[in-house]
This record gives sequence, structure tokens and C-alpha cells, in this order.
Amino acid sequence: MATINNPGDTGGRLIAASKVNGTTVYNTAGEKLGSVYDVMLDKISGQAQYAVLSFGGFLGIGDKYHPLPWNQLKYDTGQGGYIVNLDRSRLEGAPVYGASEMTSWDDGFGRDVAAYYGSGGAYYGSGARP
Amino acid sequence: MATINNPGDTGGRLIAASKVNGTTVYNTAGEKLGSVYDVMLDKISGQAQYAVLSFGGFLGIGDKYHPLPWNQLKYDTGQGGYIVNLDRSRLEGAPVYGASEMTSWDDGFGRDVAAYYGSGGAYYGSGARP
Repeated sequence: MATINNPGDTGGRLIAASKVNGTTVYNTAGEKLGSVYDVMLDKISGQAQYAVLSFGGFLGIGDKYHPLPWNQLKYDTGQGGYIVNLDRSRLEGAPVYGASEMTSWDDGFGRDVAAYYGSGGAYYGSGARP
Repeated sequence: MATINNPGDTGGRLIAASKVNGTTVYNTAGEKLGSVYDVMLDKISGQAQYAVLSFGGFLGIGDKYHPLPWNQLKYDTGQGGYIVNLDRSRLEGAPVYGASEMTSWDDGFGRDVAAYYGSGGAYYGSGARP
């Protein structure tokens, strides 16, 4: 259960954003893919729109940032990390950006991500709640 | 606008969770109250339920953590921080916890916070979206 001393240790409904960042991400085969670099929140509603994964050193794609719709991440208490049900080829073809690219992370970007993964399209496209 | 290089520099709809943490919090008079310590997210929906403010050294209440419903925080681009429309007496009477208290940050806690500030009660109480 989340406490003041350990806000990340939550068996309940909540998790601290600082605990999400840095958490390891696995595929369904239990292979380590990378980690969560950051979570992008809607300023007004506070809704997490996507998690930005860092796959540096994994998949041979260098130091890239990989936005994934929030609902693609499932937390696994056994592994102590997030599981994404996406195979390597799916990840390799997804929107991925290098650290030096000045790519907008805002609405248009979110639509690209949502369209690729086939989730959250209405939310990203219209700004309406999912 | 948020970019890969500077995810916090967003003139748009999104902000990186890592940028929220550590941001200064002011009252409407422009007085510095403290800073955002962390944001508690609903694991499943990704909805920010509350921001945890740290008022250590301010208000004479020592190193305390102060949960506030997300919708009480308004970002002010001019000041580069969050504004909370709450006076000192309101903050002093609010649910506040010390670093050593093993208080649950989960559902019951959220209900206390929402009840005090009179916002988000339905959300905290039922788990339904606001």
C-alpha cells in the first residue's frame, strides 16, 4: 500500500508518477525491452496520455524515445515492471524519435501514436475523454 | 511546445510528469508556498488523482506532505509555477502528513482530501471518472 514513506509501494489503485518513471518494461515473453522515461499528462484533466519508453541499447535502435498509449502498459507485480503486449517487429515499426529530434510531443504526435497502436484514437483526435 | 529535447517546455496540452514534480507552487497573492513533490496516478486509467505538495519550511508546518486534488492546481506560464487559490488558514487546516507517518495514500486518503477541498468527491468515492 502506498504510504508517505514509500509512495511507490502501492498495492492499491494509485502509483506515484516518480515511481513510474524508470520502471522496467518487459514484453510478454519476459524479455527486458527498456524503461519508462516519462509520462505525458494532460495539463488540465491530469489524464496520462502516453508513456515515453526509452529503448536505448535494446532492439538495436540506439537511444530512442518511444511513446506508447498509456493503456498499452500493464503493471506486473511479479516482475515489478510493465508488460507490453507488442512483438519486436511492431515496436520497430512504431513512431520512434531520437534525442536530437525536435519533434512535437503534442496533439499531432499523439494522434500518430494512437493511430499506429490502434488505441485511444478518439481521445487523441478530439481531446475528449476516453 | 513540448519536444523530445525539452518535454517540459510545452505550450500545448501536455506536460511531462517529471516536469510537474519540483515545480513551485504559489498562492494567488504570488507568495511561494512550496513545490510539487509527486503526482499520484490511477494505475489503470492513468488519471492524476492528486498532487502531493511539499511545504517544508513554509507556513511553519515543517516538512509535511500535502495532497491536493489535481483540479486545484492551475499552471501559470507567467510565474512558471502552479497557483492554488487557497489561503493560509485553509491550507493549515487541510489533511497534512509528516514524512514519518505511515498513512495510506490510497482510496480512504483520497476521500479525505476530496472532502476537505470539496472537489472530486464523486471520483474519489466511486472510482468513476470526474
